[in-house]
Amino acid sequence: MRKYNVAILGATGAVGVRMVDQLAKSTIPVKSLKLLASSKSAGKKMKFKDQQVTVEEATPDSFNGVDLVLASPGSSVSARLLPEAVKRGAVCVDNSSNFRMDPKVPLVIPEVNPEQLKNHKGIVANPNCSTIQMLVALNPIREKFGLKQIIVSTYQAAAGAGHAALEEFYRQAQEYLDGKPMEHNILPTGGDKKHYPLAFNLLPQIDVFQEHGYTHEEWKMVHETKKIMLNDMNSPKIKVNATCVRVPVPVAHGETVYFETDDQNVTADQIKKAVDDAPGATLQDDPAHQVYPQPLNAVGKRETFVGRIRPDLENKGSFDMWVVADNLLKGAAWNTVENAEELVKRDLVHVPDDYYKA
Amino acid sequence: MRKYNVAILGATGAVGVRMVDQLAKSTIPVKSLKLLASSKSAGKKMKFKDQQVTVEEATPDSFNGVDLVLASPGSSVSARLLPEAVKRGAVCVDNSSNFRMDPKVPLVIPEVNPEQLKNHKGIVANPNCSTIQMLVALNPIREKFGLKQIIVSTYQAAAGAGHAALEEFYRQAQEYLDGKPMEHNILPTGGDKKHYPLAFNLLPQIDVFQEHGYTHEEWKMVHETKKIMLNDMNSPKIKVNATCVRVPVPVAHGETVYFETDDQNVTADQIKKAVDDAPGATLQDDPAHQVYPQPLNAVGKRETFVGRIRPDLENKGSFDMWVVADNLLKGAAWNTVENAEELVKRDLVHVPDDYYKA
Repeated sequence: MRKYNVAILGATGAVGVRMVDQLAKSTIPVKSLKLLASSKSAGKKMKFKDQQVTVEEATPDSFNGVDLVLASPGSSVSARLLPEAVKRGAVCVDNSSNFRMDPKVPLVIPEVNPEQLKNHKGIVANPNCSTIQMLVALNPIREKFGLKQIIVSTYQAAAGAGHAALEEFYRQAQEYLDGKPMEHNILPTGGDKKHYPLAFNLLPQIDVFQEHGYTHEEWKMVHETKKIMLNDMNSPKIKVNATCVRVPVPVAHGETVYFETDDQNVTADQIKKAVDDAPGATLQDDPAHQVYPQPLNAVGKRETFVGRIRPDLENKGSFDMWVVADNLLKGAAWNTVENAEELVKRDLVHVPDDYYKA
Repeated sequence: MRKYNVAILGATGAVGVRMVDQLAKSTIPVKSLKLLASSKSAGKKMKFKDQQVTVEEATPDSFNGVDLVLASPGSSVSARLLPEAVKRGAVCVDNSSNFRMDPKVPLVIPEVNPEQLKNHKGIVANPNCSTIQMLVALNPIREKFGLKQIIVSTYQAAAGAGHAALEEFYRQAQEYLDGKPMEHNILPTGGDKKHYPLAFNLLPQIDVFQEHGYTHEEWKMVHETKKIMLNDMNSPKIKVNATCVRVPVPVAHGETVYFETDDQNVTADQIKKAVDDAPGATLQDDPAHQVYPQPLNAVGKRETFVGRIRPDLENKGSFDMWVVADNLLKGAAWNTVENAEELVKRDLVHVPDDYYKA
């Protein structure tokens, strides 16, 4: 059995530490593990199974001899270092947004489009967290009944903005309860000029604003959904509309998903069964016993939880549902490791001759 | 100028105390004020302008000599006492859900359908908080461009479940930050069997579950919107679909509202102008400067704040927007007092001969 020299890039971040943990729990046979981060974190020690691993500064030569890279640094670090890793023979699964819309890079959710993995040129991209959980829930519905349109509103957790944002949020919550003014220096997004408190508040801005008044996060949900479901971002076949809101929850995103199928006669029970039978999705839908997904119950789980499935009585074939998943696991670390597991299972941990070049 | 003997029923509740305050700031000429509540609260003193008013136990005879009742007790108290008040000659504006769908009772938002007030038989009903703010924002759009369909997701504050729920929520927040288990005895709704923590969580249940997997709150938004906008709850003219979620915010609800107009050529700028010109609505929509409505900024304000207006580029004539209002003021106390102001302005504080009977 082939064993793999693995490197985790961005190992000390909120997603990186979870990648180390998910890798330890995965089926991937690990021969050696390198933990890579910025020079600031070099020298730090982290646990992998029963070993202590010392974090090293990531440079192009860090990837010599590496077979498989799991990456979750900032986009600019992925842009700079992953082509260097590929050149040195490593296959990379990247959680940053840098390569997602690149036509040479498959954008993969293992439960949805694993067949795209074979097209990789050394890099596989992980979709955005809010896109992943929505499509794990919608894909079985699309496969059985077709999908015409999606209208989604997100309820996204603080941790999606990074570890420092999560710390800021907790600090604000205590300040508010103590009757003090809330300090706000990061949220809604470190990349924009103004900052607002998230604790006990709602911020309808995730990432920066772009054309037509949409945020980058909203466009990600639109374009990534089309690339994944249609393998063609310009296809008009599925209409997607998204509004993304940051809510005062530490971890795990919620989403209200309204969708129109191609089948006017499909029932809510058929939709529920399709979701229940789907890989990666867990149905929690029993209104009579007040059973529905909640972020607090989803933290630390790999599954996507789905409930509140019900018909729009005025539009046959259209439905509402409520989708919750741990944005740091299924939305990031676990989807990355799961993609790597699939690459191993399909014997795809090989960089092709026409490999990805920057 | 006629002056009015006013009574506030449910004066000590979260909405009641705000009714006392909003009445003090209103244009209604008050001759006398009675504060009524359950026997538990009788004897308590509350401030109205520069007077101290002693709370009395509400009985049918409390309404003798009263001209105008502002009511926000539980539904069953409204059902029992308001017909007694009407019989004694008082016109009542009720914030409970008890009379809302009664065809003999106008359901009124003063900015939307004030002309309905003249049809009252002694009782005027206030819509549900989440319906009010949505329709203040949508009504100018409907008037100018027509409305075919509404798909709304709510982000509703803890205070909507009452004062005890709000206290429970604050207590849970501190317990969570202290690393203690969160006690949960009220939320999502006192009227159901199971209870869950709201702090740092999301609860996709507001009120109890009813037919087809919808909650009572979701049906309220559907049926009240149709009654208000069409004066006929069975009209198929506006399709309404709602998903209601409780979020860990103390006061002020958020809503993502997706809507389809009758006009395929209307632009986002025209929608913004219609909202900006509308009574009761304040446009906060400047993405370039990160200006959008936030609950923390809406608390204590009478207006409905609207932002994030943008076109669905794949469906001409359809748009998204984000609507925030103080659920205890515009969603309850202020809408009640504003309805009473309108009754006074239109000289409608008279109980007709064919008055409302239980």
